[in-house]
Amino acid sequence: MSNRTSSGLVAGYYLAKKGIKTAIYERKLSAGGGMWGGGMMFNKIVVQTEAKYILDEFEVGSIEYQKDYYVANSVETVSALCYRCVRAGTRIFSLLSVEDVMIRENDRVTGLVINWSAVSLANLHVDPLAIRAKLVIDATGHAAEVCHIVTRKLGNKLATKTGDVIGEKSMWAEVGEKELVAKTPEVYPGLLATGMAVNAVFGLSRMGPIFGGMLLSGKNVADLSAYLLKNTSG
Amino acid sequence: MSNRTSSGLVAGYYLAKKGIKTAIYERKLSAGGGMWGGGMMFNKIVVQTEAKYILDEFEVGSIEYQKDYYVANSVETVSALCYRCVRAGTRIFSLLSVEDVMIRENDRVTGLVINWSAVSLANLHVDPLAIRAKLVIDATGHAAEVCHIVTRKLGNKLATKTGDVIGEKSMWAEVGEKELVAKTPEVYPGLLATGMAVNAVFGLSRMGPIFGGMLLSGKNVADLSAYLLKNTSG
Amino acid sequence: MSNRTSSGLVAGYYLAKKGIKTAIYERKLSAGGGMWGGGMMFNKIVVQTEAKYILDEFEVGSIEYQKDYYVANSVETVSALCYRCVRAGTRIFSLLSVEDVMIRENDRVTGLVINWSAVSLANLHVDPLAIRAKLVIDATGHAAEVCHIVTRKLGNKLATKTGDVIGEKSMWAEVGEKELVAKTPEVYPGLLATGMAVNAVFGLSRMGPIFGGMLLSGKNVADLSAYLLKNTSG
Amino acid sequence: MSNRTSSGLVAGYYLAKKGIKTAIYERKLSAGGGMWGGGMMFNKIVVQTEAKYILDEFEVGSIEYQKDYYVANSVETVSALCYRCVRAGTRIFSLLSVEDVMIRENDRVTGLVINWSAVSLANLHVDPLAIRAKLVIDATGHAAEVCHIVTRKLGNKLATKTGDVIGEKSMWAEVGEKELVAKTPEVYPGLLATGMAVNAVFGLSRMGPIFGGMLLSGKNVADLSAYLLKNTSG
Amino acid sequence: MSNRTSSGLVAGYYLAKKGIKTAIYERKLSAGGGMWGGGMMFNKIVVQTEAKYILDEFEVGSIEYQKDYYVANSVETVSALCYRCVRAGTRIFSLLSVEDVMIRENDRVTGLVINWSAVSLANLHVDPLAIRAKLVIDATGHAAEVCHIVTRKLGNKLATKTGDVIGEKSMWAEVGEKELVAKTPEVYPGLLATGMAVNAVFGLSRMGPIFGGMLLSGKNVADLSAYLLKNTSG
Amino acid sequence: MSNRTSSGLVAGYYLAKKGIKTAIYERKLSAGGGMWGGGMMFNKIVVQTEAKYILDEFEVGSIEYQKDYYVANSVETVSALCYRCVRAGTRIFSLLSVEDVMIRENDRVTGLVINWSAVSLANLHVDPLAIRAKLVIDATGHAAEVCHIVTRKLGNKLATKTGDVIGEKSMWAEVGEKELVAKTPEVYPGLLATGMAVNAVFGLSRMGPIFGGMLLSGKNVADLSAYLLKNTSG
Amino acid sequence: MSNRTSSGLVAGYYLAKKGIKTAIYERKLSAGGGMWGGGMMFNKIVVQTEAKYILDEFEVGSIEYQKDYYVANSVETVSALCYRCVRAGTRIFSLLSVEDVMIRENDRVTGLVINWSAVSLANLHVDPLAIRAKLVIDATGHAAEVCHIVTRKLGNKLATKTGDVIGEKSMWAEVGEKELVAKTPEVYPGLLATGMAVNAVFGLSRMGPIFGGMLLSGKNVADLSAYLLKNTSG
Amino acid sequence: MSNRTSSGLVAGYYLAKKGIKTAIYERKLSAGGGMWGGGMMFNKIVVQTEAKYILDEFEVGSIEYQKDYYVANSVETVSALCYRCVRAGTRIFSLLSVEDVMIRENDRVTGLVINWSAVSLANLHVDPLAIRAKLVIDATGHAAEVCHIVTRKLGNKLATKTGDVIGEKSMWAEVGEKELVAKTPEVYPGLLATGMAVNAVFGLSRMGPIFGGMLLSGKNVADLSAYLLKNTSG
Repeated sequence: MSNRTSSGLVAGYYLAKKGIKTAIYERKLSAGGGMWGGGMMFNKIVVQTEAKYILDEFEVGSIEYQKDYYVANSVETVSALCYRCVRAGTRIFSLLSVEDVMIRENDRVTGLVINWSAVSLANLHVDPLAIRAKLVIDATGHAAEVCHIVTRKLGNKLATKTGDVIGEKSMWAEVGEKELVAKTPEVYPGLLATGMAVNAVFGLSRMGPIFGGMLLSGKNVADLSAYLLKNTSG
Repeated sequence: MSNRTSSGLVAGYYLAKKGIKTAIYERKLSAGGGMWGGGMMFNKIVVQTEAKYILDEFEVGSIEYQKDYYVANSVETVSALCYRCVRAGTRIFSLLSVEDVMIRENDRVTGLVINWSAVSLANLHVDPLAIRAKLVIDATGHAAEVCHIVTRKLGNKLATKTGDVIGEKSMWAEVGEKELVAKTPEVYPGLLATGMAVNAVFGLSRMGPIFGGMLLSGKNVADLSAYLLKNTSG
Repeated sequence: MSNRTSSGLVAGYYLAKKGIKTAIYERKLSAGGGMWGGGMMFNKIVVQTEAKYILDEFEVGSIEYQKDYYVANSVETVSALCYRCVRAGTRIFSLLSVEDVMIRENDRVTGLVINWSAVSLANLHVDPLAIRAKLVIDATGHAAEVCHIVTRKLGNKLATKTGDVIGEKSMWAEVGEKELVAKTPEVYPGLLATGMAVNAVFGLSRMGPIFGGMLLSGKNVADLSAYLLKNTSG
Repeated sequence: MSNRTSSGLVAGYYLAKKGIKTAIYERKLSAGGGMWGGGMMFNKIVVQTEAKYILDEFEVGSIEYQKDYYVANSVETVSALCYRCVRAGTRIFSLLSVEDVMIRENDRVTGLVINWSAVSLANLHVDPLAIRAKLVIDATGHAAEVCHIVTRKLGNKLATKTGDVIGEKSMWAEVGEKELVAKTPEVYPGLLATGMAVNAVFGLSRMGPIFGGMLLSGKNVADLSAYLLKNTSG
Repeated sequence: MSNRTSSGLVAGYYLAKKGIKTAIYERKLSAGGGMWGGGMMFNKIVVQTEAKYILDEFEVGSIEYQKDYYVANSVETVSALCYRCVRAGTRIFSLLSVEDVMIRENDRVTGLVINWSAVSLANLHVDPLAIRAKLVIDATGHAAEVCHIVTRKLGNKLATKTGDVIGEKSMWAEVGEKELVAKTPEVYPGLLATGMAVNAVFGLSRMGPIFGGMLLSGKNVADLSAYLLKNTSG
Repeated sequence: MSNRTSSGLVAGYYLAKKGIKTAIYERKLSAGGGMWGGGMMFNKIVVQTEAKYILDEFEVGSIEYQKDYYVANSVETVSALCYRCVRAGTRIFSLLSVEDVMIRENDRVTGLVINWSAVSLANLHVDPLAIRAKLVIDATGHAAEVCHIVTRKLGNKLATKTGDVIGEKSMWAEVGEKELVAKTPEVYPGLLATGMAVNAVFGLSRMGPIFGGMLLSGKNVADLSAYLLKNTSG
Repeated sequence: MSNRTSSGLVAGYYLAKKGIKTAIYERKLSAGGGMWGGGMMFNKIVVQTEAKYILDEFEVGSIEYQKDYYVANSVETVSALCYRCVRAGTRIFSLLSVEDVMIRENDRVTGLVINWSAVSLANLHVDPLAIRAKLVIDATGHAAEVCHIVTRKLGNKLATKTGDVIGEKSMWAEVGEKELVAKTPEVYPGLLATGMAVNAVFGLSRMGPIFGGMLLSGKNVADLSAYLLKNTSG
Repeated sequence: MSNRTSSGLVAGYYLAKKGIKTAIYERKLSAGGGMWGGGMMFNKIVVQTEAKYILDEFEVGSIEYQKDYYVANSVETVSALCYRCVRAGTRIFSLLSVEDVMIRENDRVTGLVINWSAVSLANLHVDPLAIRAKLVIDATGHAAEVCHIVTRKLGNKLATKTGDVIGEKSMWAEVGEKELVAKTPEVYPGLLATGMAVNAVFGLSRMGPIFGGMLLSGKNVADLSAYLLKNTSG
């Protein structure tokens, strides 16, 4: 899984809980992306009632500040997501970037081509290595990096209207969140997406600074992955 | 209102005078954009007779140097625009950038998604916040940043010939100024433009270093905004 | 006068009121320095009772939020300082940097060597020009740029304990403000300082985000300049 | 407390456990510094027997790979330190930099002058704000940033042989770790240090990639702080 | 005329000789572009027999090193071109960039919109000024900057097959030189080109390091300009 | 030959062995490209049985670590390729970049337009020189720089499905290697390709970190070149 | 001679006139330094009566605008200096930097260690070459680069009060010019200086934008060099 | 051994020949430093008679172009040094930087603290690892990086006149080469130097572009190391 967002950490947690061996490749030094800074550097995040059970499962404190909206400390939330994800058994490898995907029979994604992030940051030319995987999840947020690699290398063949990454629309938080949870995030044979990457790939509305949809999306993609792994390899 | 130009300050002043609650989000530390430097760093600006009454209302001194053309000190002009705009009741928030617009029913612009300018300048990843507004005015000069966001996110649906931001034509000052004042600056439901942004959006001729059209455009968009707010919310 | 701070604008205003011909060379495009951003980008500044009369004279609104402390809008304050300074008759030339001072008989500072700021920002090599002045005021904040030029070019001959720019001490706002107002800001024959430059030159305590001392320092240096000009040239 | 290292998080945890109200100002977006990357980007850290109880208290898994040396996952460790630190009640404010210290009677450090990290990263000029504190802990690693501020502003008055920050010596891990734990980390009235900052300030030997001393140092500074707060304010 | 190449200097010389008032706006500090460095930093240039008379007229020494090819010192050549161009009466303004063209009736180019080069190099926002001209010559080399401005602002209306700047083809020196001299360099009403800009605009073959075509092209555009000025204004 | 990869060095070696006078222009200071760093900075490369004879011919040690796969030290391999290539008689000119190709009758590539790499790295403007060649080989890896120059200057006329550089597909090492060896690497009259440049030009699958195909491709292009040179010039 | 200023070109001219073989190594692409831009980018320079004969000898036009002060076009002046310098027989090598001096018996400077300027601009590591010379002249302006190399490599042994480069004092044009002309510019065995480098080395007053002293200094150093060469080698 | 120069490769070769297990940590991607570019990017190096036997041993061709001076191809030389060094049994690890030394009893250097070069190039904070070594050789050229670390960390205790790195003097090739070969390159207990690092540490004269001393120095340090290892560990 290629990760930069909180939905990736949630997915990693639930996948491990289901006994699925998962590795997260994190481009940055630390995991969790922008969630550390909350909204505009004010260290708070907001979660709706529907997703509060995930905060509870990760043992993150929250306060109901108006009906159906809970506020949590952003640093506590992101460190809890990361801690419990690793603790559950998923491995996070930091400072690793995805350069390409591996493709085999039927053009199915069967792994990732990775390299040290420091190599490209330092503008060096060093060859990457390849890692096999039964399923790949794109958790790179609105950049949707893995999905973009697929369209650039293999043509516009994603499971979207145009076959390409459509790009998220302007912000309409309630609609964006609902669309996100409703969407089946399988974007290509062997490749799923989660979190804002789903909004970007399918052209859904941008979500606001309310994080519930993100957390639920991580849970959903873990459930779908487990289903697919049982049925495709069975 | 997203601002970087003098027409935005003029608009802010007249909106406040009409009792309309207005907030200006200014990407830079200081307001007023390039007007501080006059033409080519020589601290003078020129205004025609038609717009001189605005200089007078802002208590900016000017001298008639040839028939129908008045010259003013650029530093005095821009600080007066800023001072009287705030003084009239409009709030200017500096170092805030517009990342996106909010959209709701009927794809109408209903607010802005803002973030600290320092966040992107420092290449950080921090989530933005959203602000509701009954009307949004794009006063970002020839960059027309808010209008560009709309076309990128929602497709070419602006009230122009192509639906897109057409881009200002080469300089023909007299024609550009006249076209600017004549144009109704409503570019999208909920979104107006003012100043050079109007020239850019509708593909009008570039204006010269004569600032009268800019000032009048700020006055015009304030009048139109007041009319729209009374009629749409009434 | 070489300027980057609000105390320079206050000094420019009072000098003009006294009928003294004053020019301010501002390194940046806009005047007023960091005051636009208030404290930590929250657009507020605080002024004590002693300095409130200056806010009143510049027609800047303020509210007493606790005994002896008034809060004002930072954008309104800085644009008012700039506007009224120019309006009073002082000329502000923006985008001009001070490269050196002119020295004549008795090593007295008799002018400034200036150049376009854009020249050094663009890393070009273009020769500067020289401007004569009866008195020079260093209003460049804690950088104390003009004073540093003097020590670098002429040796440690400033009117300080070491002869050098001592550097401001850590923050102790109340003490720093009192020391600033008490200090006679003549640092070298022909060269005065104002605002944080005084703290830096004489090694006074750093002032907090309370701006009263800055404003009073601008008033003081104007008074002292008028006195010196009358007595040295008389 | 100014933080960039794991010892700061450990200190924050134990301070909160003792009921002391603590705030951590973290310059980066995420907490934990270089610990995320383990040794040379291989995601492992090593801890000695003496410090293993801290891993256990933070519920971090570890394996004894040779006598007296335990290996742990670096991502699990750092997220656990951060999570449990916040969970215990200490507040972490990310993206905040320390620009200066506050000084009052007897030149005692009585607080910090802070600003958004994004402000200096973006090369903006915005004034900072000041925060009072009974005790300040420098947890900025071998940079020892707060201690350097004190010597730059107040002269060489630290509790070291030279009065200055001496700088850590070359690596001799066993000696460095022992010296660190043995050293009383009070460096100036009102200012303590922890972790590698202690090595840097007192010129101790550099520690290897073995993290036990770091963790113990965090525990020690918390104990000493509690003792000082009880005795100085009592 | 907007200049960065030796053909512009040749044109400036012959225009002045014909008594036509000419101004050259040079983006860099010094005129002459890459000719200072000769070929690959070896300070030599080569000129064919056909163009040798221009070297002679500018009093530049040259040696015949093989039949029909003369070699000259690149520094002598470029300084002679510049010196004799100014000496003949043409004014060169250095550090001035062309931002746009002026357009009036019939979309004819009637002048240039210029600004200090330092302004854009320093990333400042300062308004430009406009200069009227009866004819404009694009002498900006293979960048063909003025021609690109026209197509960007006014659409693909140049006197080329596509209406756009076609871009020079790969190197075939003999063919490129012949095509250049044969081509009538009028690219738009009011706008001519000279030197490599002609190759770029019309898609001619790239010329080698042999400079004869460049010099002849400067002479040609001067002749054509004189003809046009006599006939259009007459 | 324009070079940045190991296949270029192999080609240079075999060309010299056949008595063909060959020059390699290397953009960097040192030859061999990314092979120095092995896979992800771990100094090993892997070669299949089919290509092992090339390692043997260059006197590079290797160990069979699993059936049909041999591992070699990357630093030994790349320095051996470079050493034996020069030793065989091919000249390597380092720090030279290819800016353009020379074209003559029938649009056939007849040479290269080269310049010092330092010139463009230093952002200088200095004219290039031209070098004639009977055949040009693009050995610039997946950048396929020379082929890109041809399509940009001469239109989409390469010997590929689209006439353009298609771009390599995602990684499928076995398929990519086989396709590479099978492909006749003549891409344009007078222009061949070798190594990853072949994959990029013809849109073959990306090869993994297994280098056998690269080495064999260098051998192949040398054989084909020898054949062409004998038959076209004969 | 290491050059970046107009005095170097004047010296080169007079040296060639005396039949002395001279080479100028110019760090930049073009010669003449900041003189192209005149004062503050206004293309004019001023020369006093004493130096007007040099303008006349170089055939540069000038106008007396007030008693004893002549104004000339800066572009004409600098291109004339360069043209006549090369024309007289001195060779100018552009884009060459001086990295070090050669020293032999008696620590006398006996040559220069030079490298392509592009090499350091491009941050490459390439070894320099060495050039023998009977005399070296530092004409690098106020940077006094060659003199600085000597003090850094050989200790403070220059013919100045401190043995070091003292640095020019603040501007006092009349005094600076007189001191410059009066000073014998031999700074070290085998090393002379000219122009602003003399002011910098001996700590003379800075000259204003009046260029007479610069031109005379170039003439002086040529005379002194001729004298020394006749007497030391004779 | 920390390496960036050809003398390091020579030392590595002879150490391996003596059966001493040696590792070279190379900061760059490729080994050999500036030797790839020859003198001023002209791909030649010069070697004197005394050192020619080393060229012969490495099987590098050379031609006597004047008495006692042989010229060789720089690319052939550097790749031969690298190839035969690895081939002899020494391991070269590229992209590894030395951050510090390890010190133990008697302040003897007992190893190196290393990190990926990409980590600091990418401005990341990742902890280093430590490597034990019986002897360390500083082969970092005139930067003398390891020796500088020792003086910065342990004080001025090198075996030089000042105890510090003195810095190489200006160029006097013959003297520099002789001094280099004569000097015993033991600079600190456990730390030797080779090549230009010796010149830098002991303040010897700079060597010219003649490489014989460099090669001999590598041979010498290998001999000395073998002697020391036999006698200190025996």
